[in-house]
Amino acid sequence: MKQLNIGIIGAGRIGSLHAKSITYNVPSARVIGITDVRKDGLEALAQELSIPKVYDDYKQMLADSEVDAVLVCSSTDTHADIAIEAAKAGKHIFCEKPVDLTPEKVKAVIKAVDEAGVKLQVGFNRRFDHNFSNVKAMVADDKIGEVHIVKITSRDPAPPPAEYSAVSGGMFLDMTIHDFDMARFLSGSEVTEVYANATCLVDPAIGEAGDVDTAVISLKFANGAIGVIDNSRRAAYGYDQRVEVFGSKGAAVASNDTPTNVKFMGEDGVVSDKPLYFFLERYMQSFRDEMLQFVDAVNNDTATPTTGEDGLNSLLVALAAKKSVALGRPVLMSEMN
Amino acid sequence: MKQLNIGIIGAGRIGSLHAKSITYNVPSARVIGITDVRKDGLEALAQELSIPKVYDDYKQMLADSEVDAVLVCSSTDTHADIAIEAAKAGKHIFCEKPVDLTPEKVKAVIKAVDEAGVKLQVGFNRRFDHNFSNVKAMVADDKIGEVHIVKITSRDPAPPPAEYSAVSGGMFLDMTIHDFDMARFLSGSEVTEVYANATCLVDPAIGEAGDVDTAVISLKFANGAIGVIDNSRRAAYGYDQRVEVFGSKGAAVASNDTPTNVKFMGEDGVVSDKPLYFFLERYMQSFRDEMLQFVDAVNNDTATPTTGEDGLNSLLVALAAKKSVALGRPVLMSEMN
Amino acid sequence: MKQLNIGIIGAGRIGSLHAKSITYNVPSARVIGITDVRKDGLEALAQELSIPKVYDDYKQMLADSEVDAVLVCSSTDTHADIAIEAAKAGKHIFCEKPVDLTPEKVKAVIKAVDEAGVKLQVGFNRRFDHNFSNVKAMVADDKIGEVHIVKITSRDPAPPPAEYSAVSGGMFLDMTIHDFDMARFLSGSEVTEVYANATCLVDPAIGEAGDVDTAVISLKFANGAIGVIDNSRRAAYGYDQRVEVFGSKGAAVASNDTPTNVKFMGEDGVVSDKPLYFFLERYMQSFRDEMLQFVDAVNNDTATPTTGEDGLNSLLVALAAKKSVALGRPVLMSEMN
Amino acid sequence: MKQLNIGIIGAGRIGSLHAKSITYNVPSARVIGITDVRKDGLEALAQELSIPKVYDDYKQMLADSEVDAVLVCSSTDTHADIAIEAAKAGKHIFCEKPVDLTPEKVKAVIKAVDEAGVKLQVGFNRRFDHNFSNVKAMVADDKIGEVHIVKITSRDPAPPPAEYSAVSGGMFLDMTIHDFDMARFLSGSEVTEVYANATCLVDPAIGEAGDVDTAVISLKFANGAIGVIDNSRRAAYGYDQRVEVFGSKGAAVASNDTPTNVKFMGEDGVVSDKPLYFFLERYMQSFRDEMLQFVDAVNNDTATPTTGEDGLNSLLVALAAKKSVALGRPVLMSEMN
Repeated sequence: MKQLNIGIIGAGRIGSLHAKSITYNVPSARVIGITDVRKDGLEALAQELSIPKVYDDYKQMLADSEVDAVLVCSSTDTHADIAIEAAKAGKHIFCEKPVDLTPEKVKAVIKAVDEAGVKLQVGFNRRFDHNFSNVKAMVADDKIGEVHIVKITSRDPAPPPAEYSAVSGGMFLDMTIHDFDMARFLSGSEVTEVYANATCLVDPAIGEAGDVDTAVISLKFANGAIGVIDNSRRAAYGYDQRVEVFGSKGAAVASNDTPTNVKFMGEDGVVSDKPLYFFLERYMQSFRDEMLQFVDAVNNDTATPTTGEDGLNSLLVALAAKKSVALGRPVLMSEMN
Repeated sequence: MKQLNIGIIGAGRIGSLHAKSITYNVPSARVIGITDVRKDGLEALAQELSIPKVYDDYKQMLADSEVDAVLVCSSTDTHADIAIEAAKAGKHIFCEKPVDLTPEKVKAVIKAVDEAGVKLQVGFNRRFDHNFSNVKAMVADDKIGEVHIVKITSRDPAPPPAEYSAVSGGMFLDMTIHDFDMARFLSGSEVTEVYANATCLVDPAIGEAGDVDTAVISLKFANGAIGVIDNSRRAAYGYDQRVEVFGSKGAAVASNDTPTNVKFMGEDGVVSDKPLYFFLERYMQSFRDEMLQFVDAVNNDTATPTTGEDGLNSLLVALAAKKSVALGRPVLMSEMN
Repeated sequence: MKQLNIGIIGAGRIGSLHAKSITYNVPSARVIGITDVRKDGLEALAQELSIPKVYDDYKQMLADSEVDAVLVCSSTDTHADIAIEAAKAGKHIFCEKPVDLTPEKVKAVIKAVDEAGVKLQVGFNRRFDHNFSNVKAMVADDKIGEVHIVKITSRDPAPPPAEYSAVSGGMFLDMTIHDFDMARFLSGSEVTEVYANATCLVDPAIGEAGDVDTAVISLKFANGAIGVIDNSRRAAYGYDQRVEVFGSKGAAVASNDTPTNVKFMGEDGVVSDKPLYFFLERYMQSFRDEMLQFVDAVNNDTATPTTGEDGLNSLLVALAAKKSVALGRPVLMSEMN
Repeated sequence: MKQLNIGIIGAGRIGSLHAKSITYNVPSARVIGITDVRKDGLEALAQELSIPKVYDDYKQMLADSEVDAVLVCSSTDTHADIAIEAAKAGKHIFCEKPVDLTPEKVKAVIKAVDEAGVKLQVGFNRRFDHNFSNVKAMVADDKIGEVHIVKITSRDPAPPPAEYSAVSGGMFLDMTIHDFDMARFLSGSEVTEVYANATCLVDPAIGEAGDVDTAVISLKFANGAIGVIDNSRRAAYGYDQRVEVFGSKGAAVASNDTPTNVKFMGEDGVVSDKPLYFFLERYMQSFRDEMLQFVDAVNNDTATPTTGEDGLNSLLVALAAKKSVALGRPVLMSEMN
């Protein structure tokens, strides 16, 4: 079996995770090289995973003809430029989300990818989660019938530092963008209108930084369905990730994953586990599976399951949500172009 | 023990239910008389429950000095006028919801009740439901902390006849009004803004009659919390009645009641019960308990747990939701006065 | 509708419960009279429930030609004699369990009932429980296929006083007899062998009184199925009443009933309700339904759902369990005759 | 980090699983060589996992001074002899269960291991399962209090071929031995008495081969607790693996793992997933974790978590269960020496 040679740009939390995941779980690919602007720990990681090459910078990697595909796991503000260069260098691209905080740059990436004829997959890993992909299958198999309501609950265990808000583009672009993509995925339709009811209840510092930490976002979809997402930056019980799709034939409801299926029945009640702590624990399987599908798409020259358009459209919904909060009214997606 | 003498005006589904409930479950009261514009079955009901008096009309009942309190269970359009007359006759009043479809008449009832110094309780029975009152207790006991998000799922097993839409005032006034009251109850705060995303997906005839059958309604509360209600007139699996209150210390989640706690594990999966079929089955206990509390409030001269103001404010939210759909924008409650 | 005139012998906890249940929930019967060896509270109960007659003793009741049927709710040691007299007086009989602690007297009751041609129902109320009757229906409808294993978990929230052990005949005759009947009911077969593994772990005083408080009892059934019951006199979390029937097509599993379906998700885990506290709360519905079926059987001259043979056979299994503990070996039911 | 060099003897289902598991999940060890009596697929496996050496037979492996430890994954009848040879060759040993079908040979293995001063771990992988190890932690932390009852449900999705019965020693030695070890593990005590109620209800061919397929086994423990295991060789809904420990302070209950946490609410009920299909799916995590602990015990010269004595004692309980069925009476463990 030909193994796909992958180079990883950015060896932070998510880059390391992918490096390990490919090494241990994706037999049809191998990590041939890695690079990062921060050099500490990089050699050690390469050694642990038997990654043969450590590049000085990503340009060196892109110039390496042995590299078939790259994973763009650097900081968000560099995603688009690196992806465009990678496309020009003829490398297939897996790009972490968001591709960029501006639609213009995302469009530029899509254009570069199209011109180069390379593959692009955007890191909406949750689509590959065992629970959510099962709900999607029920929608696709018409088990749920016509989709009427899509509900997503997405709450973090703890907020990022307030100063992160500016860099990240705020909660909608950093956190809810996953939920917007999930809403599009589960409904099988594009969003046409967004109304966001958002506020700052978790930490005043977040509000002072101009961001929100609690929200309920109403969506209309092109196919007539209605959606709603509720977010919080801090759930006392941990990472809350649930979805529900209600349709003419019934409803599929995905509840949280937990470390164990043990309950304790005692004097104070029946106690069961809190959800798995955060995205690394909760979505480990999905990070693995998105990589398997990316490698598969490249190796077999098939379409990637999450595209540049997914990156663009989910970003536009996030920007519409921001605009809705600013204007205090529903925003049509047609206003966003 | 002195028993409260209750007269029941309207012996339809809900009037009969209260008659039986008082007879069998409320030792501190008895049904002394009953009346209805429809005479068939009335005598039989009176006999079955040993109700001594069957009045020709409610005016006769109001004139009877033996009657301490009345239950207004007649058709919605007659609630307000009867309640006003009852107040003038010095009778305590339990009035089914909605008190009226117009705020003016509800205000007139409140005024009449205040002037007469009688008790008024409005039939928001769900507040007395074992699940929801438990969630409310967690809020009241600060177990949940500061309330951030209130979520209500309320779906009927089947829509009423389309022609009922006009009479009932439409889904928001007929069905969602219970959820608006629940949102006010659970948040412990008044609604300040409503945005309703509503459509017709269940039955086109409902849309042709000018009503909606599927909705997601976003709420803002005076205390800063956010709320969301999702409604459908037809859930294939039956009556779906869930609430969730999320706050700084955690979340209380009430799931559906079921006929049994039996699951069958077989080749096709693990199958458990659908929810109890509809409101008569699901809320039987709450109908009983609201009556106990009404009788208790009258007998001990304490405040009724659901007041005319609850009836008025929940109605105003429902009207704001209708207006929001008509205008396609959020509606401030301050616009509704 | 002709109402069955019922006399209640014994106005303790269970007698009062039946009196209220018939008054409020069984329209086809009424409590015409009541009696008890203890006179305090008896008149008050009669007044509360509008019971017309209070007899000096049960003989007076049996002599009253207006009485159609009697409920034997007196102390266990008097059940059989009263039931025999009642049969001779031509009264239909509902007898609380156990009919007696000796098979001989139970047989005498059955004989007297047969000779008098009256109905006899024994108070195995749990057969009428919504969960367990649903499991039984799955067995009867062949949903489970051939029955292989019947499992019953039955644990009390707290032991009775140790001195009660002698009077009651011990745990197997007092508590497990319900489970033996349930095992017979669910398997649809008679027990052929019993092996009881029993000990005293809850309270040494129980052991000193010659009784056990913790047990696992293995059963063989005539149809080839295997059964197992586990008992404890004290579960820290309350009354634990679960059954499971496993067969060739799958398994039906009944879990506990709880006061609410609310869970709290907080820092310490996800907490849900303990089971309903004890038999009065847990089995209220079944006490009502067994009475409906008794009245129905008498009024329509059909077979009672739990017979004298059920009382006898379940007693014999309980005695076999005692013998198994004494001898430290499995006991064949054929040894018990 | 020094990596432990492991040789794997037997490359069947479980041997391959361990080979992959060590390669991908145990950084502190590597598979240095592999061997099997069947040669097909062996080279391919070695290549896939970059295993440097493929030995002609296990003797060659034992002679290789580079090998630190061996995994004995060959057929059961060869376990003991190979383990003894391995001990003599100074290799640490991980031996799949059962070590042997006769206590004598297991004792010989223990003796050889003791004399050689090498480590021995027996493959009771379920102890490392996330659910069961959590229950055990609750016992160890005194959360459950004094242990009163241990319950284990263990049912396979489908029986092995009937001819396998003879080779495997029958259900108790092949399948229930895991449950006997689990009972010892959870109770924290040794079994003193066994009574097995066993029969053939799944497949007559199993009975004809002299084996059983359905059983309820009662246990007494040295600490006074009682245990019960129920087994079936065929559960229509798949692999059923549950445990419950009931004690003076409450009960810990482990339910099945499922592929997803999605439920579908439809007209026919609320349907959720069947358990994970069989031991490879269900216990994957535990196979990984037992290997981590074995490597850790060798690398750090600490005690292995499951010892030769565990293998011996669980085997003796299994043999006692067989004897109990043969004699139709409880068997004391003191009879087994």
